[in-house]
Amino acid sequence: MSTIGVGILGGGTVGGSLTRRLLEEHEVIALKSGISFDVRHVGVRNLTKPRSFGSDPGLLTDDLQRVVDDPAVQLVVELMGGLEPAGTLVERALAAGKPVVTANKELMAARGFELLKVAEKAGVSLLFEAAVGGGIPIIRPLSQSLAGEKISTVLGIVNGTTNYILTNMTEAGMDYADALAEAQALGFAEADPTADVGGGDAAAKAAILASLAFGTWVAGDQVYRDGIETLGASDIAYARQLGYVIKLLAIGQATERGVCVRVHATLVDEGHPLASVRGAQNAIFLEGPAIGQLMFSGPGAGGEPTATAVLGDMIDAGRELLAGTAATPKVQFQPSRLVDFAEVSTSWYLRLEVDDSPGVLATVAGMFGQHGVSIGSVWQEGRGDGATLLIVTHAAPEREMRAALDDLANYEGVSQVAAAIRVYSDDV
Amino acid sequence: MSTIGVGILGGGTVGGSLTRRLLEEHEVIALKSGISFDVRHVGVRNLTKPRSFGSDPGLLTDDLQRVVDDPAVQLVVELMGGLEPAGTLVERALAAGKPVVTANKELMAARGFELLKVAEKAGVSLLFEAAVGGGIPIIRPLSQSLAGEKISTVLGIVNGTTNYILTNMTEAGMDYADALAEAQALGFAEADPTADVGGGDAAAKAAILASLAFGTWVAGDQVYRDGIETLGASDIAYARQLGYVIKLLAIGQATERGVCVRVHATLVDEGHPLASVRGAQNAIFLEGPAIGQLMFSGPGAGGEPTATAVLGDMIDAGRELLAGTAATPKVQFQPSRLVDFAEVSTSWYLRLEVDDSPGVLATVAGMFGQHGVSIGSVWQEGRGDGATLLIVTHAAPEREMRAALDDLANYEGVSQVAAAIRVYSDDV
Repeated sequence: MSTIGVGILGGGTVGGSLTRRLLEEHEVIALKSGISFDVRHVGVRNLTKPRSFGSDPGLLTDDLQRVVDDPAVQLVVELMGGLEPAGTLVERALAAGKPVVTANKELMAARGFELLKVAEKAGVSLLFEAAVGGGIPIIRPLSQSLAGEKISTVLGIVNGTTNYILTNMTEAGMDYADALAEAQALGFAEADPTADVGGGDAAAKAAILASLAFGTWVAGDQVYRDGIETLGASDIAYARQLGYVIKLLAIGQATERGVCVRVHATLVDEGHPLASVRGAQNAIFLEGPAIGQLMFSGPGAGGEPTATAVLGDMIDAGRELLAGTAATPKVQFQPSRLVDFAEVSTSWYLRLEVDDSPGVLATVAGMFGQHGVSIGSVWQEGRGDGATLLIVTHAAPEREMRAALDDLANYEGVSQVAAAIRVYSDDV
Repeated sequence: MSTIGVGILGGGTVGGSLTRRLLEEHEVIALKSGISFDVRHVGVRNLTKPRSFGSDPGLLTDDLQRVVDDPAVQLVVELMGGLEPAGTLVERALAAGKPVVTANKELMAARGFELLKVAEKAGVSLLFEAAVGGGIPIIRPLSQSLAGEKISTVLGIVNGTTNYILTNMTEAGMDYADALAEAQALGFAEADPTADVGGGDAAAKAAILASLAFGTWVAGDQVYRDGIETLGASDIAYARQLGYVIKLLAIGQATERGVCVRVHATLVDEGHPLASVRGAQNAIFLEGPAIGQLMFSGPGAGGEPTATAVLGDMIDAGRELLAGTAATPKVQFQPSRLVDFAEVSTSWYLRLEVDDSPGVLATVAGMFGQHGVSIGSVWQEGRGDGATLLIVTHAAPEREMRAALDDLANYEGVSQVAAAIRVYSDDV
C-alpha cells in the first residue's frame, strides 16, 4: 500500500465532507484504490469556526501556503472557491510539481486554460471533475470517453438552486419571490443568491463544458448570461399551455461559424429529456453525429456527492503520482472561435400587453417583418384595455430581434413588452 | 504529431463504422487527440463480403494473427465478439505488450479478470468502455470518477432489443411474438434473438457493471438470468394498472451478505427514472450513500455510437502508449462474494387463474403463509370459471417463493399460475 500525503484547502461543505470521509473511510478507500490517503493539513480561513469532521485540531491551519508547501503534502485539493487566494495557491502547487484536484468552477472558467498549461509544463495533473455537475461524472466522459466524437451540442441544467426555484414556480404556481424565499429557508439558495439566480454560476460551468465538448477553450466571461430574476409565474403557466417548460439552460453549440455559449431562461419542449429534470437535480445532455443523444443526471451539488467526485479525481491523480506520469491535459484545445452573440439565432416567446384596437396586430407583425423576424404563432388573451398577445417567433438573429423589441417598446399600441424569453432549438 | 499503428479485428457493424471514421475523420481525430491513428489491417473472416468502409483492399486480411503480430501494429482493437478466436488474439496482443481496446462483453464477462491480470503483468491497458451501454460512457465513470464511492446498487436497461420489444408491448399493446417480429423487421433484433430475449447479453453486461461497481469480480455465468419470452401483453397491462412498467433489468446489489447480480423481467415503479427509458435506448442507474442517485442514458448499441466509445478508449490507450505507462487495472478487485440466489429476497407479482369458489383465496393465502411469504395486495378480476387473482407479495427469499409457487401449482383450486414476475425494490 502506497501512502500519499494530502493537503486540503477549504473546510466548508465539500472540504468538510471530504475530510470526514478520508478519515472515517480510510480503510475502504485504501482497499478499493490501493492508495492510503493521509490528510496532513486542512487549510481554513477561520480556525475557531466549528467543523463537521473529526476532532484532531492538529489538522487545521490558517497558514494556507504551508498546506501547499509542506514537503509531506504530495497532492493538493482546492475546495475554497473563488479566484483568490485559490488561484495563487493552485498555481504554486502545480509549479512545485504537485498534482491538484479542484472543485472551483469559477477559477477553472477564468484561468483553466492557463493553469492546465502550468500543469502540463510541470508534468502533473490538474483535475476538476467536481467543478461541473457536482457528483455527476461529466468532465472525464467528455474529455476521455467522447474524445473521438465531434460533439455538436452540450446542454445543461447545471445550477440546482435555480432549477429548484423554477420547479416550484412550475409545479406549485409560486411566484419568483416566494420560491426564492422557500429555497433560502431550505438551504437550496444562499442569503445572497446573485451568483445562482443571475446565471453567473451556470455561465462558469457552461464555459468549462463547452471548452471540453468542442476542444476550444471558452472563458467564463465570454459566456452570454441572463438570469431568472424577472421571470413571472404567468409566463411559466403560458409556456406550459404552449407545450414548454422554462429552465435556466447552459447552451453550447458548435456551428460552422464557431462556437456559441450562453446561459439564459429558456423555453424547452416538454418532450425534451431535460424538461423532466426536477428540483435541485442537475443534468447534462450531449448530442453528436455518431453518438446521438446522451444524458447524465444526478445531484449537482451538496457536500457528499461533490466529495465523491473529488475523491475519484484524487485516486486518478494518486495513481499517476505513483506511476510517475500525468495525463493532463486530456484535451488538446484549439484557438477559441466564438460566434458574435448578436449573430446567434433563436426563436422567442413574447408576451405583449396591447390595446385591443384594430390594426395593432398588423402593426406589430409589420415591425417584426421589417427586421426579418417571422412569427410562428400568435394567441390573444382578453379583450379591451387588458389584451395580451402571446407570440412565438421563428429563429432570428439577436441583433434583429433586439431591434424589433426596441420598435415595439416605442409603439404606442403596445403598452408593455411584458416578457421576452428565448426558445431552445437545434438551429443557431 | 505521434503516429500509432492500429490493427482492427472485425469488420462488421462496429468495426466498419470505426474503420470508416479512422480513415475519413483522420485529421479531426488527430487535431483533437494529438494522435495520428493509422489503420494497418482490418482482420475479417470473409474477404469477399462487401464492407461499409473505404476501398483500399490492402487493408483487409483474413490472417487474424498477423493483425496482432505485425510490428507495425502497436494497438489492437477487437470487435469480433464471441469467446474465440477473440480471446486468444486479445491475450496474445496483451502478452506482446500491445494495449487492447475491445467491445466484447461476452469475452470480458467470461475472462475479464484473467485478461486484466495479463494486461497488468505486461504493463499495458485493456479497455472496454464499449462493452456495456454502447455509446454511453459508463465503464470509466464507474472505475474512475466513482472510485471513492461505496456503490450500493447498479441497475441497467442494457439490452436495446428487449427494451424495444417491451416498449411496443406496453405502448401499442402488442403481444410478444408480434413485437419481436417487428423488431426483427426493423433490424432491432437478430434472426436468432436468443441472446437478447433470453437475457444472456444483459447478464454479461450485468457481470461487468457489478464487478466495477462493487470492486468484486463477478463472471457472466454467475449471474442469474431469465428472459422475456414468456411475458404476456395482459401482464404488462395489469402491471400498468398497478403503477408499474415491466423492464428487462440488470440488477446488481451490494448487501452485508455479499453481492447479488441478476437479470430478469421486473416490475419497475412507474415513478422510477428507468421506467421512462423507451425503445432501443439504454440507461444505467447508480445509487450510493454519498452520491445519491445517478443516471446515464443514451444509445446502447449501433455501429456509430459504439465506435465513438471505442475511439475514446483508443485515444486513452494511445496517450498511455506514448507516455510509456498503463493505468490498467483502474479497479482493485476483491475476492468475489456472491449471495446464494435462493436467499435473495424480492417481492413478486403473480397472476393466478382460479376457481371462483369460496375458500380458494383463503387456501392460496395459507400456502403463502406456510412459506413465510406475506401478501401485500390482492385484486380479483372476473367471476365464475375464469376468475383471475392478481397478487403482489412482500419481499420473500427465492427459496420460499419457489416452494409456495410449487404448492400453488399442485392445488386444484388454482387452474394455472399464469404469471410470476419479480418486482424491483431496494431491499434484497
